[in-house]
Amino acid sequence: MKTRAAVAFEAGKPLEVTEVNLEGPKAGEVLIEVKATGICHTDEFTRSGADPEGIFPAILGHEGAGVVVEVGPGVTTVKKGDHVIPLYTPECRGCPSCLSRKTNLCTAIRATQGQGLMPDGTSRFSTLDGDPIHHYMGCSTFSNYTVLPEIAVAKVREDAPFDKICYIGCGVTTGVGAVINTAKVEVGSTAVVFGLGGIGLNVLQGLRLAGADMIIGVDLNNDRKEWGEKFGMTHFINPTEIGEDIVPYIVNMTKRGADQIGGADYTFDCTGNVKVMRQALECSHRGWGKSVVIGVAPAGAEISTRPFQLVTGRQWLGTAFGGARGRTDVPKIVDWYMDGKIQIDPMITHTMPLEDINKGFDLMHHGESIRGVVIY
Amino acid sequence: MKTRAAVAFEAGKPLEVTEVNLEGPKAGEVLIEVKATGICHTDEFTRSGADPEGIFPAILGHEGAGVVVEVGPGVTTVKKGDHVIPLYTPECRGCPSCLSRKTNLCTAIRATQGQGLMPDGTSRFSTLDGDPIHHYMGCSTFSNYTVLPEIAVAKVREDAPFDKICYIGCGVTTGVGAVINTAKVEVGSTAVVFGLGGIGLNVLQGLRLAGADMIIGVDLNNDRKEWGEKFGMTHFINPTEIGEDIVPYIVNMTKRGADQIGGADYTFDCTGNVKVMRQALECSHRGWGKSVVIGVAPAGAEISTRPFQLVTGRQWLGTAFGGARGRTDVPKIVDWYMDGKIQIDPMITHTMPLEDINKGFDLMHHGESIRGVVIY
Ligand SMILES: [Zn+2]
Ligand SMILES: [Zn+2]
Ligand SMILES: [Zn+2]
Ligand SMILES: [Zn+2]
Repeated sequence: MKTRAAVAFEAGKPLEVTEVNLEGPKAGEVLIEVKATGICHTDEFTRSGADPEGIFPAILGHEGAGVVVEVGPGVTTVKKGDHVIPLYTPECRGCPSCLSRKTNLCTAIRATQGQGLMPDGTSRFSTLDGDPIHHYMGCSTFSNYTVLPEIAVAKVREDAPFDKICYIGCGVTTGVGAVINTAKVEVGSTAVVFGLGGIGLNVLQGLRLAGADMIIGVDLNNDRKEWGEKFGMTHFINPTEIGEDIVPYIVNMTKRGADQIGGADYTFDCTGNVKVMRQALECSHRGWGKSVVIGVAPAGAEISTRPFQLVTGRQWLGTAFGGARGRTDVPKIVDWYMDGKIQIDPMITHTMPLEDINKGFDLMHHGESIRGVVIY
Repeated sequence: MKTRAAVAFEAGKPLEVTEVNLEGPKAGEVLIEVKATGICHTDEFTRSGADPEGIFPAILGHEGAGVVVEVGPGVTTVKKGDHVIPLYTPECRGCPSCLSRKTNLCTAIRATQGQGLMPDGTSRFSTLDGDPIHHYMGCSTFSNYTVLPEIAVAKVREDAPFDKICYIGCGVTTGVGAVINTAKVEVGSTAVVFGLGGIGLNVLQGLRLAGADMIIGVDLNNDRKEWGEKFGMTHFINPTEIGEDIVPYIVNMTKRGADQIGGADYTFDCTGNVKVMRQALECSHRGWGKSVVIGVAPAGAEISTRPFQLVTGRQWLGTAFGGARGRTDVPKIVDWYMDGKIQIDPMITHTMPLEDINKGFDLMHHGESIRGVVIY
């Protein structure tokens, strides 16, 4: 079949919206009609050429929602008509990682997915001239129709709006999941979120959902104060306006208890800046502070600290896809959205047709959108 | 009263064995007759002047066992004649840290202990000329008699030999506790221990106790292979003899499961070398590897890695005193020793009278002893 898609032909170039060929689903695969897709910084990281593992030409996009149109041989867990969210972190439920009970990082199709291919080592996309186009993060939601492995789609309820729940395919789950699955924040905790973009705001609402008491947001942009407050932030810090280093500043504002030792119980980096990652670790509480790296750092960048920070009880963690198991946890997050436990609508600041996808990238690049969503 | 002690008058100088004055216990304090004390690398770190927070003159030593001789007013939890192990990490059971259930790093007397003083801000030790001598880590077990806060002594069973259980005051608890309290190693795990000195061997036997399957020891000194095997090590690596970088080497030798992803479930640095700390993190398993820093790094040294290591599920932790609550957990470790669940006797390679304590430091410095113990 043919489908319209925004193709990244070369690193650093705008996407080209064009018709491409799409082969139908092979064994264990499903054909999805994508109804909506968010535009995420990770797409831009690859499009721009900053990602050393980027492969071109490719159809980017990994934050979608849609409907199953056709299933390949042997597919048993979804059927035509099911509403689904594509998963860049699949959940096979059979590999050592899925069975470990310790991680969501399923390894079943990791090698081929990293090469921009389906599990059989081939691509379903090609140009009208017949040249292959790579898949991206196993999703390629910047195409109106796409093919995914069965283990990489989460079946979700049918009353949930595609143009909102597509965001659960990446940003929402990453932020909320980092709080709930990775950090395991308890009621009454004190927390700091560095970077109040599309991920950081979701960390904030994850903290609100988990019942944190003091939820501190940090951003260089004062406009983000109002945004943060919408999602549960109780205190805002603009590091350029405090006149001192942010680590002692946060330690001081989080002093509590008889011994007046400061530091946050949980901190989250959503900036991708390795200096900020260090600050996040070092402003966490002696003895038990957990600091979670969510942001993606530039290629080659390294985090560092004195080992004393760890020996005195701080823990340095990271998270991918919010520690969520896609097929198991994503449908629950859709329920939380439908039940009003988390909000998505205010974060979708811009919508557009596929033709305008490059404008969506511009809005994100200039910090004007929280989330831009393409509606097919 | 007067007591014999080995005094560190100046950084970098040998200890001087001499008589000193010791005031009796004030309110909440106890006077202990030290029966035996181990010599630990941390004593040498301070004695040598490498510790930027070292204070002189001081009476070092923090790994002792002895008998309560006298208690000050208000002391209720120990009495004259009780056998005790001094605790450089006290356990007050009332501060926010003790009550957090998340850390053993009691803060009740932290400030004064760091200044080499008792909780009232004064020292009990002085020279015969009346000049004050500082306490060290709240213990000062290189004195035949010493005064400690009540919250800094663990009461232990009376049939346990002082010249062995003194080692539980630091090295044994640090190593075994890192496995059990900090890493929480499960039966069947794969683990790597970097550095097979007095701490590393105790990590090995902690891993054996916890039921780890594959227990890999790493040391530059081939003599440590036989030592490691005594305490549960199943595989030995001398990094200078493998002809490749140790991280891929360990990842390769720990490959298992259907996806053949290598990496250890748990790794422990007992070297204090920040490059080794990085290797320990990076050879831990994608998705769930926990790497625990135990070794004390030189002043100013920093650990670093790519944040990708954390984002893909590795956790970087540290431990002090093996995460053990002194009064609660140390008596249990004494029981484990008496029950034969852990061994101490073979690690006490040298004993000496206080007069020969500087020889004990030399043996440690040259790697000839696993543990040297002063018997009073
Ligand atoms: Zn994304
Ligand atoms: Zn799997
Ligand atoms: Zn020690
Ligand atoms: Zn305490």
